[in-house]
Amino acid sequence: MQSFVSVHPSSHFPLQNLPYGIFSTATDPTPRLGVALGDFVLDLRAIKRAGLLSGPELSAHERCFEQPTLTAFMALGPPAWREARATLQRLLSAGEGALRDNLALRSAALLPMADVTMHLPAAIGDYTDFYASREHATTVGAMFRGEANALQPNWLHLPVGYHGRASSIVVSGTDVRRPWGQALPAAQPGATPTFCPSAALDYELEMGCFIGAGNTLGQPIPAASAADQIFGYVLVNDWSARDIQKWEYVPLGPFNGKNFATSISPWVVTPAALEPFAVPAPPQDDPLPLPYLRQPDGLRANYDVQLEVSIVPEARGGTGGGGGGGGSQGKGAAGAGGAEATVVTRSNMRTMYWTLPQMIAHHTAGGCNLRAGDLLATGTLSSAGPQGAGCLLEATWNGTRPLQLADGSQRAYLQDGDTVVLTGYCQGQGYRVGFGKCHGKVLPALPPQ
Amino acid sequence: MQSFVSVHPSSHFPLQNLPYGIFSTATDPTPRLGVALGDFVLDLRAIKRAGLLSGPELSAHERCFEQPTLTAFMALGPPAWREARATLQRLLSAGEGALRDNLALRSAALLPMADVTMHLPAAIGDYTDFYASREHATTVGAMFRGEANALQPNWLHLPVGYHGRASSIVVSGTDVRRPWGQALPAAQPGATPTFCPSAALDYELEMGCFIGAGNTLGQPIPAASAADQIFGYVLVNDWSARDIQKWEYVPLGPFNGKNFATSISPWVVTPAALEPFAVPAPPQDDPLPLPYLRQPDGLRANYDVQLEVSIVPEARGGTGGGGGGGGSQGKGAAGAGGAEATVVTRSNMRTMYWTLPQMIAHHTAGGCNLRAGDLLATGTLSSAGPQGAGCLLEATWNGTRPLQLADGSQRAYLQDGDTVVLTGYCQGQGYRVGFGKCHGKVLPALPPQ
Repeated sequence: MQSFVSVHPSSHFPLQNLPYGIFSTATDPTPRLGVALGDFVLDLRAIKRAGLLSGPELSAHERCFEQPTLTAFMALGPPAWREARATLQRLLSAGEGALRDNLALRSAALLPMADVTMHLPAAIGDYTDFYASREHATTVGAMFRGEANALQPNWLHLPVGYHGRASSIVVSGTDVRRPWGQALPAAQPGATPTFCPSAALDYELEMGCFIGAGNTLGQPIPAASAADQIFGYVLVNDWSARDIQKWEYVPLGPFNGKNFATSISPWVVTPAALEPFAVPAPPQDDPLPLPYLRQPDGLRANYDVQLEVSIVPEARGGTGGGGGGGGSQGKGAAGAGGAEATVVTRSNMRTMYWTLPQMIAHHTAGGCNLRAGDLLATGTLSSAGPQGAGCLLEATWNGTRPLQLADGSQRAYLQDGDTVVLTGYCQGQGYRVGFGKCHGKVLPALPPQ
Repeated sequence: MQSFVSVHPSSHFPLQNLPYGIFSTATDPTPRLGVALGDFVLDLRAIKRAGLLSGPELSAHERCFEQPTLTAFMALGPPAWREARATLQRLLSAGEGALRDNLALRSAALLPMADVTMHLPAAIGDYTDFYASREHATTVGAMFRGEANALQPNWLHLPVGYHGRASSIVVSGTDVRRPWGQALPAAQPGATPTFCPSAALDYELEMGCFIGAGNTLGQPIPAASAADQIFGYVLVNDWSARDIQKWEYVPLGPFNGKNFATSISPWVVTPAALEPFAVPAPPQDDPLPLPYLRQPDGLRANYDVQLEVSIVPEARGGTGGGGGGGGSQGKGAAGAGGAEATVVTRSNMRTMYWTLPQMIAHHTAGGCNLRAGDLLATGTLSSAGPQGAGCLLEATWNGTRPLQLADGSQRAYLQDGDTVVLTGYCQGQGYRVGFGKCHGKVLPALPPQ
């Protein structure tokens, strides 16, 4: 499968991928739909206006491609998504002349990725975060309650999740300010809380999915058809202030420890692109989940996504450090400005215990409605093995075993100026289907008021 | 203060109130802005089109009154709200002829409340629920952990809250289906969970506020100015499935036990209308809150809102029971269809420990952004005294001490067909500033799949 656009084998965005995103340009600041191909972005509004993006499913919904978000397109559901993908894959293939040979349209519609600014893919109505990695839940549980009580009694019976904050979800490249918050100074008896900048700022390596058509309030989505609700996937950094979280979370869960920012990668990778990399999810036979959480035999799958997190300290004496801009997503964040990146996490989505269709089935089992553009995230994706921890809480054993970075400095938790870079891809035969990068730089806390 | 529209002294909607809501009519199904006055709704779109709703603050924003929600009007902030209120209060007063004497406009713009359908007031971006009543937190804590450990260590230091589900917020009059969910059958060692309709469906008496202009991500709202962010207040029934909640909520908080539905009253009562009923909030001197949670002396206030909850069982042999329709909100829900209402809760907002400005200051202290139309709810508002419990969990001591209803039946938790009616008002000299009703009827769970 070849495009007339040249794509390097290490690119995350070959013709096999075609992820969707929302972009704008300096000359046209209107956010609009695009797909990534190599180092280019195809402007879907331009393609649609040129009459090259229609078909039986899409013709009644062409206004989708005039919107400032993907939400309306997400709401259309699998038949329209399939038609759009097939149309775009054909249009961009080496043997198809409609775009290839129309140089005026090519120059108007095929834009260098380095020249675009990316925006949030959807108007996110609600954001839900789960806790679906057994490795993560086990390690964190053992840290606070000991090996014997590592997993809470409910964990193997249902995908534990909570409602997150939608307003503070930001697109990759957005700086993240270190939050102030209440925390206990130390675990000493009688200690009273103080209000101070978080001293335990962490990343969480996650993946998320955008919801398609959704469901009516009161009408659950069965596990067997829940996969049809997934428009596509992104990388998620669920920034966490561990000291704030620890003090606040009993009994109602995380709040200010999480709601100051959540970063997502801008390109939404579709299930169709990931399908060749589906792998069986870890078995669930002890205990067997309740019937409402069972997917048909052979369909309980994750994807073989190789995930990686790097920390890039701020370049000494400079304001570089990479990742400040919202622009080019396929390259450039790690290592920019002369600072050195250190890989601190290597994980894989394949080890996730609860699948996203199971999370959708559970989320809606009581009737809760999902809407087009809602975001469901997996929770920290840790894997077994060296560097498998998906956050510093795990990797440094709550800050007590600092990591060594390539520049010689140490990290118990994140420092001001650090850029955290998430990336992930599936390796095919001579090509990669990837997510690009999700990066954000830590700004110092505001001065005291 | 008199209107040319006759308003009964027991009405919740005199000229002193003028709450905002979104309504439609059979002849014009477009949702639009209105204010309640006695048994009437004033159509603000019609008034604005007649040129009677403008002024220095509003003239640049008249499109607010052509929207299907209040969100854009909420975003304008206090100066515009003050101007709109003063304009409307003058326009509707007995001595002002512009509307009073224009019979064509009166018949077009002043509509019988019984003829309108109410909708959600805003596009709610995010919904946050707090836990601000000391009486409630103490009773529930004592129930599960004993008197000595009733309040968690953090409770007196910060307003504990969590992110709720925005998609399933419904307007008063919407039926609520009993959710299925996972629960442990009993507290027996080794018990495994089952999936079944909730057997412990509860109401929670709360109040909520809609956010006005909001804040930029990363820029906290100080406690001293947080009150300026409150557009207005509604009644909230945070329906809860206690059995589902109990099994799921460790460690990330309530999820499916709450997200199947949250009902709110349709009329948003403004701070200006409630101001005469401000009362000092309970003292906070042991411990003194941290400075970021302190309001200026004398400004830490609640309102003297008399709150009440009734249960109306389904009328025998009928489909009545009241409250199914979305229409008239000032009357009719309790006791309709011949069924008898039993008051099960009598409480008051004045006893709330954490004020809403404190909740706003805490919510944004780490930088989390609030947006126009966001909803913050107080958590269950219980008071001391007989019937002071704001939910059945408290009132029946987790179902072990059933309540007697007027029809002779008992309630440990809600039964199918029950209509729950929340109401509340402030009593002035010869008038009431009230919230109308927030009601919803429990439908039986869906049949097994």
